[in-house]
Amino acid sequence: MNTTGRPGRTGLWLIGARGSVATTAVSGLVALRHGLVEATGCVTELPEFSACPLPTWDEIVVGGHDIVNTCLPKKAELLADAGLLPHRLLPSIEPGLAAVDAEIRAGHDPVSHRGAQADAARRLADDLTEFAERHALDRVVVVNVSSTEAPVTLLPEHQDAAALTAALTDPQRAPLPPSSLSAYAALLAGCPYVDFTPSTGMRLPALRELAAERGLPYAGSDGKTGETLLRTALAPMFTTRALRVRSWAGTNLLGGGDGATLADPRSAASKLESKSGVLSSLLGEDVTAPLHIDNVPDLGDVKTAWDHVSFEGFLGARMTMQVTWTGYDSALAAPLVLDLARLTAAAHADGRSGPLGALAFFFKDPDGNREHGLGEQYRQLLSWVDELGEPTRGEGETR
Amino acid sequence: MNTTGRPGRTGLWLIGARGSVATTAVSGLVALRHGLVEATGCVTELPEFSACPLPTWDEIVVGGHDIVNTCLPKKAELLADAGLLPHRLLPSIEPGLAAVDAEIRAGHDPVSHRGAQADAARRLADDLTEFAERHALDRVVVVNVSSTEAPVTLLPEHQDAAALTAALTDPQRAPLPPSSLSAYAALLAGCPYVDFTPSTGMRLPALRELAAERGLPYAGSDGKTGETLLRTALAPMFTTRALRVRSWAGTNLLGGGDGATLADPRSAASKLESKSGVLSSLLGEDVTAPLHIDNVPDLGDVKTAWDHVSFEGFLGARMTMQVTWTGYDSALAAPLVLDLARLTAAAHADGRSGPLGALAFFFKDPDGNREHGLGEQYRQLLSWVDELGEPTRGEGETR
Amino acid sequence: MNTTGRPGRTGLWLIGARGSVATTAVSGLVALRHGLVEATGCVTELPEFSACPLPTWDEIVVGGHDIVNTCLPKKAELLADAGLLPHRLLPSIEPGLAAVDAEIRAGHDPVSHRGAQADAARRLADDLTEFAERHALDRVVVVNVSSTEAPVTLLPEHQDAAALTAALTDPQRAPLPPSSLSAYAALLAGCPYVDFTPSTGMRLPALRELAAERGLPYAGSDGKTGETLLRTALAPMFTTRALRVRSWAGTNLLGGGDGATLADPRSAASKLESKSGVLSSLLGEDVTAPLHIDNVPDLGDVKTAWDHVSFEGFLGARMTMQVTWTGYDSALAAPLVLDLARLTAAAHADGRSGPLGALAFFFKDPDGNREHGLGEQYRQLLSWVDELGEPTRGEGETR
Amino acid sequence: MNTTGRPGRTGLWLIGARGSVATTAVSGLVALRHGLVEATGCVTELPEFSACPLPTWDEIVVGGHDIVNTCLPKKAELLADAGLLPHRLLPSIEPGLAAVDAEIRAGHDPVSHRGAQADAARRLADDLTEFAERHALDRVVVVNVSSTEAPVTLLPEHQDAAALTAALTDPQRAPLPPSSLSAYAALLAGCPYVDFTPSTGMRLPALRELAAERGLPYAGSDGKTGETLLRTALAPMFTTRALRVRSWAGTNLLGGGDGATLADPRSAASKLESKSGVLSSLLGEDVTAPLHIDNVPDLGDVKTAWDHVSFEGFLGARMTMQVTWTGYDSALAAPLVLDLARLTAAAHADGRSGPLGALAFFFKDPDGNREHGLGEQYRQLLSWVDELGEPTRGEGETR
Ligand SMILES: NC(=O)c1ccc[n+]([C@@H]2O[C@H](COP(=O)([O-])OP(=O)(O)OC[C@H]3O[C@@H](n4cnc5c(N)ncnc54)[C@H](O)[C@@H]3O)[C@@H](O)[C@H]2O)c1
Ligand SMILES: NC(=O)c1ccc[n+]([C@@H]2O[C@H](COP(=O)([O-])OP(=O)(O)OC[C@H]3O[C@@H](n4cnc5c(N)ncnc54)[C@H](O)[C@@H]3O)[C@@H](O)[C@H]2O)c1
Ligand SMILES: NC(=O)c1ccc[n+]([C@@H]2O[C@H](COP(=O)([O-])OP(=O)(O)OC[C@H]3O[C@@H](n4cnc5c(N)ncnc54)[C@H](O)[C@@H]3O)[C@@H](O)[C@H]2O)c1
Ligand SMILES: NC(=O)c1ccc[n+]([C@@H]2O[C@H](COP(=O)([O-])OP(=O)(O)OC[C@H]3O[C@@H](n4cnc5c(N)ncnc54)[C@H](O)[C@@H]3O)[C@@H](O)[C@H]2O)c1
Ligand code: NA
Ligand code: NA
Repeated sequence: MNTTGRPGRTGLWLIGARGSVATTAVSGLVALRHGLVEATGCVTELPEFSACPLPTWDEIVVGGHDIVNTCLPKKAELLADAGLLPHRLLPSIEPGLAAVDAEIRAGHDPVSHRGAQADAARRLADDLTEFAERHALDRVVVVNVSSTEAPVTLLPEHQDAAALTAALTDPQRAPLPPSSLSAYAALLAGCPYVDFTPSTGMRLPALRELAAERGLPYAGSDGKTGETLLRTALAPMFTTRALRVRSWAGTNLLGGGDGATLADPRSAASKLESKSGVLSSLLGEDVTAPLHIDNVPDLGDVKTAWDHVSFEGFLGARMTMQVTWTGYDSALAAPLVLDLARLTAAAHADGRSGPLGALAFFFKDPDGNREHGLGEQYRQLLSWVDELGEPTRGEGETR
Repeated sequence: MNTTGRPGRTGLWLIGARGSVATTAVSGLVALRHGLVEATGCVTELPEFSACPLPTWDEIVVGGHDIVNTCLPKKAELLADAGLLPHRLLPSIEPGLAAVDAEIRAGHDPVSHRGAQADAARRLADDLTEFAERHALDRVVVVNVSSTEAPVTLLPEHQDAAALTAALTDPQRAPLPPSSLSAYAALLAGCPYVDFTPSTGMRLPALRELAAERGLPYAGSDGKTGETLLRTALAPMFTTRALRVRSWAGTNLLGGGDGATLADPRSAASKLESKSGVLSSLLGEDVTAPLHIDNVPDLGDVKTAWDHVSFEGFLGARMTMQVTWTGYDSALAAPLVLDLARLTAAAHADGRSGPLGALAFFFKDPDGNREHGLGEQYRQLLSWVDELGEPTRGEGETR
Repeated sequence: MNTTGRPGRTGLWLIGARGSVATTAVSGLVALRHGLVEATGCVTELPEFSACPLPTWDEIVVGGHDIVNTCLPKKAELLADAGLLPHRLLPSIEPGLAAVDAEIRAGHDPVSHRGAQADAARRLADDLTEFAERHALDRVVVVNVSSTEAPVTLLPEHQDAAALTAALTDPQRAPLPPSSLSAYAALLAGCPYVDFTPSTGMRLPALRELAAERGLPYAGSDGKTGETLLRTALAPMFTTRALRVRSWAGTNLLGGGDGATLADPRSAASKLESKSGVLSSLLGEDVTAPLHIDNVPDLGDVKTAWDHVSFEGFLGARMTMQVTWTGYDSALAAPLVLDLARLTAAAHADGRSGPLGALAFFFKDPDGNREHGLGEQYRQLLSWVDELGEPTRGEGETR
Repeated sequence: MNTTGRPGRTGLWLIGARGSVATTAVSGLVALRHGLVEATGCVTELPEFSACPLPTWDEIVVGGHDIVNTCLPKKAELLADAGLLPHRLLPSIEPGLAAVDAEIRAGHDPVSHRGAQADAARRLADDLTEFAERHALDRVVVVNVSSTEAPVTLLPEHQDAAALTAALTDPQRAPLPPSSLSAYAALLAGCPYVDFTPSTGMRLPALRELAAERGLPYAGSDGKTGETLLRTALAPMFTTRALRVRSWAGTNLLGGGDGATLADPRSAASKLESKSGVLSSLLGEDVTAPLHIDNVPDLGDVKTAWDHVSFEGFLGARMTMQVTWTGYDSALAAPLVLDLARLTAAAHADGRSGPLGALAFFFKDPDGNREHGLGEQYRQLLSWVDELGEPTRGEGETR
């Protein structure tokens, strides 16, 4: 694969390719290619990004892994019934969806897998390589949009690439959670990796070491699309106005596949952890911040979040703010998946490696960046984009 | 008066000195001087401002004009009953309030005034000069926190300083609304002027001309404390995420003096005008934006605002956000009055003149600056503050 | 027409038959007849009504007047796109909608009409009679679901049936607003009349006199479906708990046909009037109650209402409640239109005449009943239903 | 004690007499006696109750048990700072509060108690008897407003009065939770008992048996003051309109003593249990109903509840309602404590015994009544009140 200059023909390989976020992203990409819709929600289509060397919609080819079989055209129909896609689009995008569906391969299912994880990883990496060759792609960006996993306990072999490689060959063991196995497979195939979920993914020292060795960039984690997006837009209002936030309580109601997954407290733990760093980082440690995620199946793909903020002003005056956010989660996430694929492809083409901290704008728990304020993250993104492709530049993470 | 270097002993002259905002500001100032409270809500007390040459709380001396007679200690008691000040502070701040009360002079009452406005302006200006002399002040900043006026129709004599000066001498005419008469008096006395209300104030070409002639800085208008503060924090979230806002409806419920004033549709017109520019400036023209201000006397000084935002995301998905803000309006406004007095004093000491666009962060309808986004306004403020007092610097409005 | 015993074959004649409410009602009726949906939202399908002699879905035949030409199947498609009907129903209900469409006649258009209103009324009445004959109906209930009109000024000829009859023959005059002309035509044709809108309809002394003469029942006015429904459910909570409501502010955002109509302040005046009686009747006169209706086209058929209630408890403690209601207005209204058709047919079959106060449960501004509390209205409805068809009973309005 | 006719001089004995609810109730009673406030929030002061034989404010004498020592005048001051009482009342009610304070005795502290529970119960009962004698009271109503306990496991000796009496004499055992020990002491002293908390109290078969033997009435449990009050007012709106509620999610934020107690998951379990029966009873079993109680200390005595209701209407249209309730919990509870004391005294005077199901209107989890709908509960209360003191009447629980 070519790694410099313009990103060129770009593969987008989705882990969880038959899920809601993935199907919405693919439906939108197909519709955008045909000029059927506007690119609402795509950050990289803002005028500020027009000079940036990004793959066009036509240059992006999609494939992926999943462990279920509902075909994409069928899944798109279900999403239309749920209000996520307009029914009128279905006939025109059906062929494009079917074409992507033909590029979906069986994912790694930890429940049914027998044998060493090294073999599983090799098989996943081969899928990537064959996909790249089949479509003559300049590069393939792997994006994880599969179900959220439980947090993992750090093992000694997570700390060190050599130890990990050894442990993976043992057929009695399964040292990596599925998200990290996918990340590892991406590294084997020389692909940049983006984690849109709060799962472990690339966040193990051994994997970071391998990524550095291979000069591959990666980004994550956990797409910032609803309540957390709001919080990172609002919290700086309080701090720059010197108002003292005393408590910030949140309740999230959601159904759909993600709701069902998060109904399991172990998966919810990952999500709650990824969400909770935000407030203490922006407002300090002494804010009471209860946070709930409830599975409410009848809401389907609609996510409703209620936040209640209690704050103190001049002379101790007690005031409150409440926000209710009602969003289609996948409609908020899908365009960001396309944005991340484009920007990560551009970073790879530009020879960047390691965590792309400048993409913090897109994530609840940004890898390689401690900034959580949305406005500041956007400024950092713009200045990183301005530098992309410039002939000479300094080094360092967020630049 | 000395106009360079550190601001030194600074007068704060409040038009509307017996109103809610004024009384809260003065109560807080007295309590801060005595170390009885924290400076919550005071932007200029944030660490980012520590290097800025600002008058200390002890260096600020307060006086003002009003047309009612309720003494400040009494008014403070009423505000404590309304929940704006803690009762426990009252005994300790009573002497300080009484001292300020002794510095309040009769304001210009347009209803009872007989004679030429030139004489009225001269009398108001004399009050300022005597105040400065009485307390050996380095400068006096005039801040308008009096009742909101109706918008005015532009007259020919508003366009030109000479024509205005002539018109003011005619005892049959009253070409200036009270806020502009106060601004004019401030100019006569060589004082910088801040308009915390949406009234006309300095926004007449003839007055701007005079300010430029005298090298005086001014700032305005309409303190940004509630719904508009929120809007300017939130709107950039939508635009930087490429989400399309379709409608942004608002309802404001408030009682108190401001509620009663705004129950008059002519006064409300000023406020609605000053609020409404914000959304179209941040989001473009095609956003449906009904906006109401209702006088609900039983709410007293609590202002409740409800905003309902309808927006469109990827593939046309329709989503909403609602915010309810419940704030003590005067508790939000008062510390900003102190901030503005300090920053405007520093600008004056530094030799700035004309509209202080860098103070846009504080205003709904910023004079000398088109930026409405709160985050960006804050960055502009910080960079202006960094330059303050620097030996050499470039010229230009927002710098 | 037969007027005693079971209602039998019942015509439902809709004024405004191509509007949102009408189309939703007809779509639902057709789907109910085919057993395709549950009767959610139909009060008369609750077990409490099982003994009541009501026409079955199969016994109801629909026709109507309108002044636009969009055919019902087309309109149903638009409503499906707007989220009001499931797309999957469209193919199955299309024939039923087309059949109703064939029964729609040109309504009375006050803008284009030339000649005496007596002729117009005769023509409308003939449409009713022919409809009844064509389908061998036992009776026809006329339900007004056309656009809301402005309130009218009472004229002398509105007071007296003879004077009205005379005035109607004058081709230079148009003493009746369209809703009252429809009501008059219903009376001419011997049909009961229901006003689901806040328009004048039957509420003129001359028309009431004629209804009494002809022994016809009528009901109204203004279907209670959203904010007012909520208010009449909630206000009794405050009064029975001896809590003192101080203010109850409301804002309604809606688009669609009704939104556009109510954007005209004259039409809105009718709606605001019909809504505003409710609170003072339930809570007394001294409640501050600002109320707004805003046309927000992008919301389409979704109506969002925000209510803010400020109340006082023990020892003067100040508390608040806020409610946001987000409903599909027509989905709330349509089943009530079917309920009202059934109940009014039953009343007619039972020989009732005059205002049907016992139907207050369905209306914002109930004719013939001062009770506004929802719970109490429901009890009155149930006890009226229990008496329906009983051999002997006392007389009087609400019984 | 006299048990027929008018209730006469009535003791109100509060378990938890120094808590927020108790102190607010006593402050209000003193202020009402002096005519300093209106009886807002007192149901028994509504005109509908004027014919009912209730003790007057002057006839009510208060005492109680608690395990802390903060005196009532001090506690009232703290409540005033928290916004629950107006500061201006404090001086006038101080003597009355001090008088009640002198009637507070050491409660039963399960942590420090040594010895058999029979002795503890005897001591508590003696306090009641001496109180009645000291003040020549006609009867004493015991009301439990102490901290919420964890739910208990049913033991064999809870089933049977004889077994319980035996178990209580064993110094090694503590078969009763404190609330039930108080209830038992009330029975020993011949006093009616009201449980305003969700604790076990009288709800053990052995205690019910004893109450029946002694002909004593009792009522409970868990005062209905906020979210649940709202729910029982709103749920009947959905059912009588045939709308199908799909989910009803709730979050409660509160601080204060009750917030701290409920931060312990075992105490919260009692409260969640008492709240959760309401929705399934009113709406059926298949409503998704996540419910949270969060301790947010900075909110103090303010309780904020957010409810999100998702419901289905005609043709499956999906709609939502949200409510935010912001109340001073103790201000809502205190007048009901007075109401319950009055009504229970009247019931006792009238010779009623067993659970007073007709008081369901006041409780989240009404003892002796399955009705949860607020409107219907109010009607039952009124008809029970009408019968009170009537010479002849039928028997049975709710009558
Ligand atoms: N706004 C958002 O929607 C948003 C925001 C941030 C993060 N996320 C995360 O994105 C992910 C996807 O969300 P969704 O709503 O599309 O969920 P979903 O349940 O609809 O889709 C997940 C898909 O992953 C597949 N999958 C599960 N395990 C797999 C494996 N081992 N290999 C390959 N595929 C596997 C599932 O079969 C399913 O098709 C979740 O982890 C979610 O937390 C979503
Ligand atoms: N958050 C906020 O409170 C906020 C925000 C932005 C702007 N403002 C503006 O600040 C102003 C003050 O608000 P407030 O709540 O203190 O109102 P207020 O009614 O309590 O006080 C206004 C004071 O101005 C005095 N006044 C009226 N006419 C005068 C005159 N001609 N000369 C001198 N004094 C005069 C009045 O007597 C009164 O004491 C209003 O214009 C308001 O719109 C307030
Ligand atoms: N929840 C609710 O939707 C609700 C509740 C209470 C009252 N209403 C009232 O019901 C009415 C209908 O609401 P909608 O949303 O269906 O409105 P709509 O605008 O969709 O439909 C009104 C229909 O009336 C027709 N019309 C206008 N003038 C006419 C005339 N002179 N003769 C015959 N037809 C005429 C129009 O062409 C249109 O088809 C409105 O008056 C509304 O205020 C609705
Ligand atoms: N709206 C309401 O406030 C409301 C509604 C329903 C139920 N309740 C219940 O009322 C009770 C009181 O609420 P609060 O806000 O006053 O709480 P609180 O914590 O302020 O008061 C409880 C009091 O009980 C005392 N206490 C604890 N254990 C005791 C014992 N063994 N014997 C005697 N006293 C004891 C405590 O010392 C304290 O003074 C709680 O159980 C609460 O759940 C309150
Ligand atoms: Na304001
Ligand atoms: Na309506």
